[in-house]
Amino acid sequence: MSTENTVIDRHYCEQLDQHDALATLRDEFDLPHDVIYLDGNSLGARPKAALQRAQQVVTQEWGTDLIKSWNTAGWFALPSSLGDQLAPLIGAEAGEVVVTDSTSINLFKALAAALHMQSGDSKRKTIITERSNFPTDIYMAEGLTRWVDRGYRIVLIDSPEELPHVVNDETALLMLTHVNYRTGYLHEMSAITALAHQHGALMLWDLAHSAGAVPVQLNAAKADFAVGCTYKYLNGGPGSPAFIWVPQHHQAAFNHPLSGWWGHANPFAMQASFAPTPGIRRALCGTQPITSLALVACGLDIFGKTDMQAIRKKSLALTDLFIQLVENRCASHPLGLVTPRAHAQRGSQASFTHPYGYAVMQALIARGIIGDYREPAIMRFGFTPLYTRFVDVWDAVEGLRDILDNERYDKHAERHAVT
Amino acid sequence: MSTENTVIDRHYCEQLDQHDALATLRDEFDLPHDVIYLDGNSLGARPKAALQRAQQVVTQEWGTDLIKSWNTAGWFALPSSLGDQLAPLIGAEAGEVVVTDSTSINLFKALAAALHMQSGDSKRKTIITERSNFPTDIYMAEGLTRWVDRGYRIVLIDSPEELPHVVNDETALLMLTHVNYRTGYLHEMSAITALAHQHGALMLWDLAHSAGAVPVQLNAAKADFAVGCTYKYLNGGPGSPAFIWVPQHHQAAFNHPLSGWWGHANPFAMQASFAPTPGIRRALCGTQPITSLALVACGLDIFGKTDMQAIRKKSLALTDLFIQLVENRCASHPLGLVTPRAHAQRGSQASFTHPYGYAVMQALIARGIIGDYREPAIMRFGFTPLYTRFVDVWDAVEGLRDILDNERYDKHAERHAVT
Repeated sequence: MSTENTVIDRHYCEQLDQHDALATLRDEFDLPHDVIYLDGNSLGARPKAALQRAQQVVTQEWGTDLIKSWNTAGWFALPSSLGDQLAPLIGAEAGEVVVTDSTSINLFKALAAALHMQSGDSKRKTIITERSNFPTDIYMAEGLTRWVDRGYRIVLIDSPEELPHVVNDETALLMLTHVNYRTGYLHEMSAITALAHQHGALMLWDLAHSAGAVPVQLNAAKADFAVGCTYKYLNGGPGSPAFIWVPQHHQAAFNHPLSGWWGHANPFAMQASFAPTPGIRRALCGTQPITSLALVACGLDIFGKTDMQAIRKKSLALTDLFIQLVENRCASHPLGLVTPRAHAQRGSQASFTHPYGYAVMQALIARGIIGDYREPAIMRFGFTPLYTRFVDVWDAVEGLRDILDNERYDKHAERHAVT
Repeated sequence: MSTENTVIDRHYCEQLDQHDALATLRDEFDLPHDVIYLDGNSLGARPKAALQRAQQVVTQEWGTDLIKSWNTAGWFALPSSLGDQLAPLIGAEAGEVVVTDSTSINLFKALAAALHMQSGDSKRKTIITERSNFPTDIYMAEGLTRWVDRGYRIVLIDSPEELPHVVNDETALLMLTHVNYRTGYLHEMSAITALAHQHGALMLWDLAHSAGAVPVQLNAAKADFAVGCTYKYLNGGPGSPAFIWVPQHHQAAFNHPLSGWWGHANPFAMQASFAPTPGIRRALCGTQPITSLALVACGLDIFGKTDMQAIRKKSLALTDLFIQLVENRCASHPLGLVTPRAHAQRGSQASFTHPYGYAVMQALIARGIIGDYREPAIMRFGFTPLYTRFVDVWDAVEGLRDILDNERYDKHAERHAVT
């Protein structure tokens, strides 16, 4: 539908929902009736199936079958079986992904392996990333490079336009988050990866805000490593384990210091020296939190009912609509769009600054319109096409308009920690 | 009760259960009726409360309250609130323990911090541990020391009697598992820690098989670091997150390379450079698997109904009885006790070798008597005083006797992976 000459009102949004091919997938989720949830980019909503699965893990697998479940319920295989299920969503092959540990820990593994692979070239001493990257990506690089004390430097850039000027033959690794957590800016994965390779650098992508949100083609882009999160757009549950991708051709050289027994070639032989398993499971370390891990499948199962192209199409329609409505209906207020207008540069979120962004977001949340706030002054709204309706967009903007028009927010609100 | 002049039979064991002060705690657990579970040292049984807690986390906290639960349900605080609850079981103070990540990852943090603290003394280049330690402890030390390439060496000893001869002024760290996973051998924590300190070495204890199984007094022993597991004797659930202990006086100097955003002084300020938080939370790294983490409390709650002295008393009574019955009733079979007879050297398990140990264990499991097998040739039986009855000991030994007397095991059984 074109929105050029159409009056956009709530009825129009209802019609969009009626024509939405993904509309029925909302039934797969348990969402509170009084909430418009635009924070799936922080914590994805709950798949209905997760309750039954949690009960099964706790009662049958843990309670009744006990230790046998490591084999009979596939617990030990879960990191790789979930990885195989996730792989197509990010353009990866089976045997290239494991779901395990946290994103931070997986970043450490990939960073360490990349530096190790580059260690033959003593000039390659820089890791390039963005100052605006999610902090833990930078912190993990800091932790690693400080600890090894071999002259590695972290170069922080302030704009992707700097990349052609800073990537050079001293670059060991370029590490970027595909979609920026604050702005929703989407990097060109293929072009940037090619730029890195042109200079002999390796390329690590953090897919925290893109897996399940935008189409990702890791192998087609010839990326070297990727990590990501399952509790945002993949709806795996609170703090559910993260994933790491190592393409087949890098696996033999993928060595990292977190060499725990789950990454051993023969973990049950109980040998006194480490020898990595040949495949992707060398990216594993220790025993995994099974209850949280098992629920990841409930989120992934829903993606089996659609595809990333359909999801992307709806995602852009939702964010287009949101941006257009905010700019039209809240035009008199000092809102600044920080998310790119160009589709090719936009993830599945829309962020606006407002001088009282924190207080306005608190007022929105108080009336059940849940987005979140990120320093500085950014109101962040995430759009999960699997369960967000066009009418939700309308209602959210109307709520925002009312709060702004009538100054229904506390200008002196104190900020509290939110994740 | 003395067993010296008493006929030990099933009736006698029933009487022991009738006089057992901990007997009622078995009702806190959901155990299958047809199983004698002697594998709580691998995966603890399920507290009944865990089902309701899992349902609450999934439906109310995740499904309904969504992102708000990071604050309202205490998700973000969980690593430290659980750590405070766990602390008294290991002789630690509140503010000294966090429940987080896996034991392997926590070992890495403690190893790295210890080497960092010792780095002022260039002679201190060895990490001493046991060849019979659980492999991941050795593997993590290998991973760390290989990666930093500063001449660190791992010295593997074959008996604790070697300790006074190998610990010297080149020792950076002594790392031991308090109770050996195969043999159940229990180290003297205070004496060994004092030996390490006498030579200027730091002392790291792995409590995987002692937390919740034997009394542990980390502060009284003046230990430097400890890690451990919550899914064994603490009954936290399959693969539930591990813990790490750093005493107050070491926290300011506790620096490790896994410096993720959860360990930052101000994690929500989203600063582009890492600065560790002052307290124990600097041992945190990334986002934690909340569903698995939340269930840890259900196991810990049960310890609030007794104390480690009562647990230890029953533990020794159970293992004494088991050893005595096996040696009396299976006397004609080639069984070798590998667990120390001396109480002061025994954890909460009893292990016997048998030439067909694997096959015999499979036969036991097939009839619902669940222990496990560890290379080489070791049948391992764990005793969890919270839910194991004296009559279970009798029935388990009778099952073993029948299998051995009548050769009801498959001498050609192929070994499969077990965790």
